[in-house]
Amino acid sequence: MAIPRTPASAFVARRNALAARLGSRPALLSAGLPRARNYPANRYPFRASSHFLYLVGQAYPGAALLFAGGEATLFLEPPASDDALWHGAQPSFAEIREALQLTAVKPLSDLDAILQALGGGSAVATLPTQDDPSTAWLSERLGRAIRPRSGHTLEAGSPDVALAEAMIAIRLHHDDAAIAQLRAVAEATAGAHVLGMRATHGARFEWEIAGAMIGALRRHGLDDSYSPIVTVHGEVLHNETHKNPIAAGDLLLADVGGETEEGWAADITRVWPVSGTFSTTQRELYDVVLNAQERAVSMVRKGMRYRTIHETAGRTIVEGLRDLGIFNGDVEGLYERGAAAIFFPHGIGHLLGLDVHDMEDLGDRAAYAPGRERSKRFGDCYLRLDLDLEPGMAVTIEPGFYNVPAILRDEAITGAVGKDLDRSVLERFADVRGIRIEDDVLCTEEEPEVLTRSAPKHPEQVEALVRSAAK
Amino acid sequence: MAIPRTPASAFVARRNALAARLGSRPALLSAGLPRARNYPANRYPFRASSHFLYLVGQAYPGAALLFAGGEATLFLEPPASDDALWHGAQPSFAEIREALQLTAVKPLSDLDAILQALGGGSAVATLPTQDDPSTAWLSERLGRAIRPRSGHTLEAGSPDVALAEAMIAIRLHHDDAAIAQLRAVAEATAGAHVLGMRATHGARFEWEIAGAMIGALRRHGLDDSYSPIVTVHGEVLHNETHKNPIAAGDLLLADVGGETEEGWAADITRVWPVSGTFSTTQRELYDVVLNAQERAVSMVRKGMRYRTIHETAGRTIVEGLRDLGIFNGDVEGLYERGAAAIFFPHGIGHLLGLDVHDMEDLGDRAAYAPGRERSKRFGDCYLRLDLDLEPGMAVTIEPGFYNVPAILRDEAITGAVGKDLDRSVLERFADVRGIRIEDDVLCTEEEPEVLTRSAPKHPEQVEALVRSAAK
Repeated sequence: MAIPRTPASAFVARRNALAARLGSRPALLSAGLPRARNYPANRYPFRASSHFLYLVGQAYPGAALLFAGGEATLFLEPPASDDALWHGAQPSFAEIREALQLTAVKPLSDLDAILQALGGGSAVATLPTQDDPSTAWLSERLGRAIRPRSGHTLEAGSPDVALAEAMIAIRLHHDDAAIAQLRAVAEATAGAHVLGMRATHGARFEWEIAGAMIGALRRHGLDDSYSPIVTVHGEVLHNETHKNPIAAGDLLLADVGGETEEGWAADITRVWPVSGTFSTTQRELYDVVLNAQERAVSMVRKGMRYRTIHETAGRTIVEGLRDLGIFNGDVEGLYERGAAAIFFPHGIGHLLGLDVHDMEDLGDRAAYAPGRERSKRFGDCYLRLDLDLEPGMAVTIEPGFYNVPAILRDEAITGAVGKDLDRSVLERFADVRGIRIEDDVLCTEEEPEVLTRSAPKHPEQVEALVRSAAK
Repeated sequence: MAIPRTPASAFVARRNALAARLGSRPALLSAGLPRARNYPANRYPFRASSHFLYLVGQAYPGAALLFAGGEATLFLEPPASDDALWHGAQPSFAEIREALQLTAVKPLSDLDAILQALGGGSAVATLPTQDDPSTAWLSERLGRAIRPRSGHTLEAGSPDVALAEAMIAIRLHHDDAAIAQLRAVAEATAGAHVLGMRATHGARFEWEIAGAMIGALRRHGLDDSYSPIVTVHGEVLHNETHKNPIAAGDLLLADVGGETEEGWAADITRVWPVSGTFSTTQRELYDVVLNAQERAVSMVRKGMRYRTIHETAGRTIVEGLRDLGIFNGDVEGLYERGAAAIFFPHGIGHLLGLDVHDMEDLGDRAAYAPGRERSKRFGDCYLRLDLDLEPGMAVTIEPGFYNVPAILRDEAITGAVGKDLDRSVLERFADVRGIRIEDDVLCTEEEPEVLTRSAPKHPEQVEALVRSAAK
């Protein structure tokens, strides 16, 4: 399956939309600088900042895009004299200008004088980039302190806030080209999960399955949109080591997502039994999570407050666990006393786009509506999104069940539920450490579009795929 | 194949060797800080600095190892309160101290006071780490400017130079545990190349083969020791995009190497015909490179100057091309006029260890013997190593042939050879853009040990592997 390329016209439309919101205020968006791995010349694969990629679609290291007087000018490092040998013939600035339909492409060495002519750096809005050196570079260009890692604490009333708000307004609602990217990467990532299920039989360590899945992404030209989680210890939420041995009785949790060359992300979690057959207890809890997940997915629609989906999923899980005898009492009372977060201690999901947590570089500014703030309550405090959904927004839906010793030992979390948590019943489910089921969902004018629908999640389908390799 | 773990005793021996060379001078070695990818919380997989990994074997983000008074103390960030939930139960400092056989493990917050007690940062030697933020962190701890990316320009006579020289002296000669790592990662990487050959039939884009090879590394729990090169445009030396379509008549060049969890690197290049059969012209040039490569490999022995191997490979290539009619004249005369670099414009190889270009963070200090300097001549200027080889040193041997338009157009490079380069004969070989054959070789007391010998390079073997998938 080929990943589509976004036509230049879509980038033009995005730049025009931003320019219209900026008015006469100039703005500078930086791609960021390459980051070294073990020594300066051995670098991580360069990932440009998402704001830059959204408007340009190409990851030019060290580049910057300037909006001024209704024109978009790209500033690039000219090729070094030996680039042709080491990196191949590079397109000329004129060719790049033409391909990307920009007003102009100029050498980075011209940038400082042009910023001066615009009234200096204090007249030019910007956004902090992904790391300290890139942000320091911006500070130097603009002659004012850009605070790194502080998008959510931009000084009120500064031009940077207006730029942030403009970017958020545009990036929240995915255009057709963005949706095409999200669909393609979701589909390819779903395929990687199928291959992971098929690679499980005979594997002895997590990394064998992780390798099959990562290889499947790379075979489509996709990078990882985040560090892949492939583990039999799903109760460790961000378990990225792939080191554990796996045993026939284990559940394997894979939270793996691809990223297109233009930067668009997928984010899928699936869980499957290593043996190819869920135990009775594994199946019971899997069904609790799947039921909550499908209900939550069906709620993704225009006007729905995302927090309501989160809360409904929590209540659905509490109800399922109550029906299994893990909780006693009425669902609402249990929920109010924090029962959901004991086993589902994170948010139901997040925005998805160019960043897997889209625009998290701007803190909660993009994902929390004005006047809404993070809850202080355990579990709910990890909810990354509290908007009323609108068509064009893409979100993940990812409830889970985790048996986390540190939580179960913590009286501050479990105390209010007390004896209504039946630990002897819970012990019967000891072969479940972590389950999470996660899809990427596009809010539309009508039914939600599940972008990741070709990743099987119904237990019989999952079992059949795992078993298919054993034959 | 399982990658071995280095026993704690080997790290103790390395730390003792360093402490003995340091004498009473204290030294601080930092692991470095995690680097953000697209936003601060979405990070690249953490890779600790190689000096730190050499002595500790574990990649603790932000950690530092202090040598003082004959004792080695590890300073670590204590786990955050919610680490158990997101990253799993962490070993206690006492457990880490025991497992790594360190004198002590202490929280990072204790470090500044301890440095003060040692006489302040000017009394403590250090080495710049891999990027600016990590180096800025060091500067702050030591109260003096540590210049990033400047290992090769350390101030003469400073304590940092003595530390660099001590690390180089130890790391140049691989101990048994290091050799075990290098053997294992070479073997697994060789397997990835075999899978790449087998994945070629039916592939339409470079990324399909790259994906098979990267997946094969991950299946052994290996990371990439550098950005993989998998391309039908081998004439672009660092072609890391994997974007090109591939055609039956192409040669595919794969320069791909794994890295163990402890950080040890492999670096293998193989070239194979996409169709499964070399054309006559491809085979002729392949044999020229292979002949030079095998001759160079056989020269890796105690006391041999590495530059001599480089020059011999260059002369061998010139001779082979002369025999094919691409050059006219006597080999020595052609070589003196720069004929080798027209088609083989890089060095014959480099040191290999924890870094794929081992200790390149220290510039040429590790790899060039005192009094030896980089040549100014095109081609030779890229030679990364000029030592007399000693047992325990690992190097790559990687001659090549490239048809680079930018070089062939460049009168400054080709002028001295002039008409003795027969461009009409060269045109007959137009179906060869780039060939490189690269092995990892350990210098021993006797015969060189080719660590990567299980990656086939003889043309019939390579053809058979590519064809085997077509059946």
